[in-house]
Parts: sequence; C-alpha cells; structure tokens
Amino acid sequence: MKFTVIERSGRKARILDQRQLPLKTVYHEYDDYRDLIESIRTLEIRGAPALGIAGAFAVAVAADTDVETNVNDLKNILADVAREIKAARPTAVNLAWGVDRTLKAGLQYPGDSLNEFRELIWKEAEEILAEDRQLCMKIGKNGAAIINDGDTILTHCNAGALATGGIGTALAPIFVAAQEGKKVRVYADETRPLLQGARLTSWELIQEGIDVTLICDNMAGVVMRQGKIDKVIVGTDRVAANGDVANKIGTYTVAVLAREHGVPFYVALPYSTFDNDLATGDDIPIEERSSDEITSWGGIRTAPQGVKTYCPAFDITPHELVTAYITDKGVTPGGRGEPDKK
Amino acid sequence: MKFTVIERSGRKARILDQRQLPLKTVYHEYDDYRDLIESIRTLEIRGAPALGIAGAFAVAVAADTDVETNVNDLKNILADVAREIKAARPTAVNLAWGVDRTLKAGLQYPGDSLNEFRELIWKEAEEILAEDRQLCMKIGKNGAAIINDGDTILTHCNAGALATGGIGTALAPIFVAAQEGKKVRVYADETRPLLQGARLTSWELIQEGIDVTLICDNMAGVVMRQGKIDKVIVGTDRVAANGDVANKIGTYTVAVLAREHGVPFYVALPYSTFDNDLATGDDIPIEERSSDEITSWGGIRTAPQGVKTYCPAFDITPHELVTAYITDKGVTPGGRGEPDKK
Repeated sequence: MKFTVIERSGRKARILDQRQLPLKTVYHEYDDYRDLIESIRTLEIRGAPALGIAGAFAVAVAADTDVETNVNDLKNILADVAREIKAARPTAVNLAWGVDRTLKAGLQYPGDSLNEFRELIWKEAEEILAEDRQLCMKIGKNGAAIINDGDTILTHCNAGALATGGIGTALAPIFVAAQEGKKVRVYADETRPLLQGARLTSWELIQEGIDVTLICDNMAGVVMRQGKIDKVIVGTDRVAANGDVANKIGTYTVAVLAREHGVPFYVALPYSTFDNDLATGDDIPIEERSSDEITSWGGIRTAPQGVKTYCPAFDITPHELVTAYITDKGVTPGGRGEPDKK
Repeated sequence: MKFTVIERSGRKARILDQRQLPLKTVYHEYDDYRDLIESIRTLEIRGAPALGIAGAFAVAVAADTDVETNVNDLKNILADVAREIKAARPTAVNLAWGVDRTLKAGLQYPGDSLNEFRELIWKEAEEILAEDRQLCMKIGKNGAAIINDGDTILTHCNAGALATGGIGTALAPIFVAAQEGKKVRVYADETRPLLQGARLTSWELIQEGIDVTLICDNMAGVVMRQGKIDKVIVGTDRVAANGDVANKIGTYTVAVLAREHGVPFYVALPYSTFDNDLATGDDIPIEERSSDEITSWGGIRTAPQGVKTYCPAFDITPHELVTAYITDKGVTPGGRGEPDKK
C-alpha cells in the first residue's frame, strides 16, 4: 500500500491522521499514551482491526515511558492504563482485545528488567500488527477467487486498508484481484452520516489505482437496477453464531437491495470476528450516535434546531441476506444460498 | 400554514427564501422578472407545483413593469421574456406550463388598456396559485382517509407545502390528518445530496407542530425492519402512463424496502402529473447533477480530488412497487396490489 495506517517508530507509534483525509495526508508520532487515547477517541485511527492494533500500541507506548519505576509497579500502572485506553471507545471489542492481549503478555513476564519488559510488550503489539497483515492478505486471496475479470463491486463504509493494519477486509479481495491482473471497478457508497465511503474508501482506492465511483447511499438501488453492480462486499464489526452481521448503518438496506436485484452479497472478515457468544443479531447492542452527526456538517447546521433524530451507528443484516462470508480460512456460504439469477 | 411560499404583494412577488432554511426565515419581494429568474435558478423557490406558480408570477411581474409601451408591444416583449423564464430550469415542466398558461391568457386579451392587460395577467397567475392550493387540499383530504390515528409515516425529499402553493402533496395528507385530530408521526429521510429532507421537510413539519424524526437515507431499511413505519408517502415529478414514478433519487430504494417489509408505499400527486405521453418510466429522461453535490458540502470538500461520481437527480420507481396514488381525484391503486401483511 502507498500509505501506512499504524506502525512502530522507535519508541513511538506513528499514525496516519484519518480525520484529515481526503484533503491532507498527515502522520503523527506519539510517545504519550494519553495522546493515543485522544487519537482513538477522535477517530484519527478507526476500523475494528486497526483499533486492536492501536490499543496494543497504546499499551506499548505507556510501558515505554521514562519514569522511575520497576517492573512490578509498571505492571500495576499498566493495568490502570489499559482500562483508560479501553474507555476511549467502550463498544469497540477489538480495542479491548488488543489492549488486553498486550497487557497479558506483559503481566506474564517473570523477570525484573524494565528494558526486557518494555521490548516484550512492543513485540506483542508488533505481532498483533503482523498477524493482522497476514489475516488481511488471506482474506484478500480467498475473496479474489470469487471476483471475475471485469467485475464491478459495490461497497459500503470503509473496511479497507485504512481500517486495518494490512490491505483491509472488504477491499482486500479487490486489491488482490487487481494485483492478479483482473480489471475491477468499485462503486463506493458515501456512507452517511460520517462519509467514510467518500472520505476514506474512495481515497484509498484512488491511491492504489483502482477505478472508483462515488455515490450517495440512496443511489445503491438505482445502480443495481441498472445492472451496474456484479457483487457487493462489505466488512463487519461482529457476526453472531447464526451468521447475522452487525456492520455500519445502511448495510442492511444494501443487503435487501442486493437480494432484490440478484446481486451476490458478501461479508469479509477475520474468522475471529464470528462471536459464538451471541446466538443471533438480536443480541448485538446497537450504539446510538449523537444527533449532531445528522444535523450539521463541518460546523454548518443542515437541520432545524430542535429536530428529533434517530442515529444508530450500526444495523444488523440477517444471515438470510448473506451469500457468503469471506474469511482468512476460506469462503463460507451464508443463508441466502446461491445468488438469484433475475 | 405558518409560512407562505409565494404570494402577490401589490405589483411584486413575495417569496420565502428556501436557500436560507432551516437557519433563517427570510422573505424577498421582487418587482423585476430577472430577479425572479435568478430566484428560480438558485432554488430560492423549488418543487414542481411551486415552480409553475413562480413562472406565472414572473410573467406577471414582467408585464407589470413601468415602461413606455402599448399592449401589442408588451405582448411581443412577454413572448421573449417567457422563453427566458422557462430557461431558468429547462427540465421543470411545471415552470414552462405556468409561464405558457399566463402568457396565453395575456395574448388573448383583445383590448388596448395596459392596466387591464396587466391585471388580467396577474389574475391568471393568482388563479394558478389558488388552483394549486385547492389541489393540495383535495390531495390532503383524500390521503388523510388512508392515515390511521397513531400512524408513523416515512417520507423522502420534500413534497410538502414548501414545494407547492398550498399544503403540499406528500405531506398534505399528514397535515389534514393532524387537523382532523389524528396523532401522526413522521420519519423524514434527509435526502442526499441536497438534504431537502433535513433542511425543508423537517423544518416545515416542526413549524406546523407535527412530530418529526430525521434519519439518514441509509437508515430507512432499519427503521422499517424495527416496525417503526406504518406507511410511506412520497411526491413525484412525473408519472408515466403505466404508473412508473419519477421522483427524487432514493425513492426507488425506499419503495423496494417498503415492499420487503410489507409497508404500503403511496405516491401523492396532482392528477395532472400523470403523463400519458410517456408509456413507461424508461421514457423519462434522468437529469444527472454536478459531482460537486456529492464531493463537497458548504464549501468543504468531503471526497478526494479527481474521484468519479454518479449523481442522478431522479430515479424511476416501477408501478409494481406502488400501493396506490393519492390524487385530487381520489386514491387509485398501483401495481403492488393490497399491502403485504408480513
């Protein structure tokens, strides 16, 4: 990729500031975990897998601070810090997972060398990043097999490289297919209210030389009716045991439209995103966001004062609308069965 | 209504500046038809029926200008002016209709009194406004009959009072039902890219004391799945002979979602909007708008430079997705048959 979402830079975490995309490509280096918390909180870095890595790096940065301490005290400090980091985005399960895994690795260190302790934590964080890169590549290779030369693919929100440490989840098959020499075009839903499709997905596809057309979310129906779309691929935040998919608000609408038009609907994800503790999508809590996200843009108010809003961050796509799940372990059929041929 | 979209004020046309909604309620009075052309061109006044009235008022204002002339010369001048006015929004059929009808009334004046001639043209323009008010009221009364006490209605774009000289088309049944004492709630799609739902529909419903909740277009699916929506009512720009409906982009997606969820889908329109010269929706040309409407908001760029866009202004909803048409002449069944009961 021509950009790097997050990487280690000595004792610092280097992060691409996604808040400034698509206008400016700015990187920040952080050596204070509190700045990383702010970075996570304000969506400088976002996307489920990337948040896992950011959480891990935040623990590593916190451990690697010049304070007079010893390993035991630092372990206690880090346990508190871990709670602080996870609170930056309390509903992001990957963030908590990355934080906890890195902390656990540290807590298991039996020695008393601060340097060794710190390096061990950094290694764990870097290992999480490396694993994510490999995961994305496997998803990409498995997904590329279902992409035909000349396909046009619609995606919603951003489940691309910008959401991960690697080449993304939903966009990974597209990047791999293009590398394999297939001609692939993408339609990107702009994805209201935060416009991740406009700001992020179209930006990263342009960086990588993929032909992308931006549409408003409400145009997904008409482009499918016009026969412009061969496949839909989206990412996911969480999949229940029965295959129901939690993803960015609007995904459900796209899935209904896809079935109506006989367009296969794929969900790309690391296999670990299947959450067997949740029987169905009904068990997935839906975060509701601030009404400001709908009622203004760039500080300009676009709706009357006092208007009520409903602003769910996610929706649930029932497994009956999913053609297949593209994971690092292969392509698993969903509940929709074979794509309709209308 | 607590606001007036367009009315005569002596020798002037008084217009509510919809460009400044929902932030400011500003009225302008125009005594120069060229200012009215600018008003029409820049969407100070918009909506098919309102544009017919604005076109008529523009002709009246042009006729009622203090120039040394006689009736015959003025008739010739007005024929040229009429072309200028119609060119302000060349695809708006109602604009052309309002202009032509007013001009024709003037051209038929047999006398040579300038005052009589001018007043005759004003009367024709005011008659067009009065007829539109009556039309809206009839649509409202016919539509209110299908609204039950406690209904929640989803609408897309703005086919309200702000788009007409009266109480609107799609919103008219809601206003009448509320006046009849029924409790009615509305979900308003914000309607990207120009946000007429956020800026206009939610504004006018709040003015009139109707309970309105604003959502992003991509949330229409989830609110229907949650059982929150009892009916959809939208307006239309044009209906083909077979009942296919041209309306604001996104309407088709809403219609697909409505059928999927067993929610009745109604189209409200003056009966004259049925265009028997068009066999099906395929014959309706779809205007494509500037990519700026998708790639920036309020001067802030939200998509990368050079991104391709597809930005149709309208889409076609096939008659099979329409439960019924609500017109001034009654409620006519569409091709969907009785509402599904899921």
